[in-house]
Amino acid sequence: MTYCIGMLLDQGLIMMADTRTNAGIDNFSSFKKLHTLADRPDRRIFACTSGSLSMSQAVISLIQEGLPASEDADMLRTLDGCATMFRAAQLVGEAVQQASATIGAALAAINISSSVSLLLGGRIGKGPPALYLIYSAGNFIECKAETPFLQIGETKYGKPILDRGIDIDMPLNEAVKVGFLSYDSAMRSNLGVARPLDMMVMRRDPEAPILERRIEPDDDYFNALSLQWSRLLHEAIGEIPEPPFMSSHEPH
Amino acid sequence: MTYCIGMLLDQGLIMMADTRTNAGIDNFSSFKKLHTLADRPDRRIFACTSGSLSMSQAVISLIQEGLPASEDADMLRTLDGCATMFRAAQLVGEAVQQASATIGAALAAINISSSVSLLLGGRIGKGPPALYLIYSAGNFIECKAETPFLQIGETKYGKPILDRGIDIDMPLNEAVKVGFLSYDSAMRSNLGVARPLDMMVMRRDPEAPILERRIEPDDDYFNALSLQWSRLLHEAIGEIPEPPFMSSHEPH
Repeated sequence: MTYCIGMLLDQGLIMMADTRTNAGIDNFSSFKKLHTLADRPDRRIFACTSGSLSMSQAVISLIQEGLPASEDADMLRTLDGCATMFRAAQLVGEAVQQASATIGAALAAINISSSVSLLLGGRIGKGPPALYLIYSAGNFIECKAETPFLQIGETKYGKPILDRGIDIDMPLNEAVKVGFLSYDSAMRSNLGVARPLDMMVMRRDPEAPILERRIEPDDDYFNALSLQWSRLLHEAIGEIPEPPFMSSHEPH
Repeated sequence: MTYCIGMLLDQGLIMMADTRTNAGIDNFSSFKKLHTLADRPDRRIFACTSGSLSMSQAVISLIQEGLPASEDADMLRTLDGCATMFRAAQLVGEAVQQASATIGAALAAINISSSVSLLLGGRIGKGPPALYLIYSAGNFIECKAETPFLQIGETKYGKPILDRGIDIDMPLNEAVKVGFLSYDSAMRSNLGVARPLDMMVMRRDPEAPILERRIEPDDDYFNALSLQWSRLLHEAIGEIPEPPFMSSHEPH
């Protein structure tokens, strides 16, 4: 299992991914799922992957080594040749389709799911950061202002806090907190989601440095946040008035 | 879709169910899913159902009309003949198996899922309230102190607040609040869960009256709770300190 979040806010782009992979509960390990696809002054592109690990790794390798151009098999197309983030999403979608046609077909023949999905985020040139969700068929959607976040993997446990907590105009450090709270919920309910977490913060200003950080299982800040959140939730529950129909139902 | 919660706490038993059923998003309606199976002075037994509506209704009718005794097909077994809640759970499990063998087999033949699951709660005699989750194979588990709640249906969105908010020794009116918050999360994220909600509260004292109540879509208390919860969550998020690594990443 996996859980990845991307948020595209007024102040910039945040991407988070856990590192747990498993093939059954007796066979799990850590793999980085937040990948740096391009790291040059004119393009900084990242991807989070969810689904079959062999498929995910094949997709990332195809993107990094390049896909053959249809008219000339010797010429390889990479993210370096993409003029916009939309073109980059198209290329990643093609890589997904190519991996599906080979590895995916082999897995399907033995009834193993080969689905893979990605969050693709970053910027090309001085353009604004963009965020896409690429599905296992290679089609994709772009993150827009109405719902300024996208999720892949084990999305449900962590969604309520994002639905209520994420506003497009919030500061990035507040959004990082809400992202951590979303992971805390997912990790409590699904053993397939676990630290270390990897995160990336890209401010809207193209000159601002990109923050990349790993949150280890013994991270003091994350552990304190988890404890505080339990206490704050209990306090918040206490502040809500009691259901009026329960007071007439008190024991005598 | 459906979402049902049962909580077995020191002070008593709470069961909640929504009423939305749907066969595709263009075909939905309201059906009561919190059923009264026995309502006599010596036994008060309730069930929440999730899954195929035709299967659920068949199971409830089988329980109410009685299952044939294997040795004598004229004699019907009902909950009236069950000496304990464990025996009641066994009878309900049998009803599920019988419905699966007939309706379920017909549905399976046309590739339609016939899975059904139930929460069974109540008390027989002066015994303590008990709560069971009956799976679609007719097997079941009993709610115990370590995890004092059970869910069926669209369980994930509403689970984090139950995991953090429900303690076995909390007052029932607090637990009702947490249950409503869990529904509020599920309803925000899945259109297949919707009010009216039905609820039942059975205090541990066998002499205390049972509360049964329907929460309509325009229920003032529920609407206020939902608004307050959004505000309280934002305040709680604000109280958590900022990630220390973000302050060094402020824009210049």
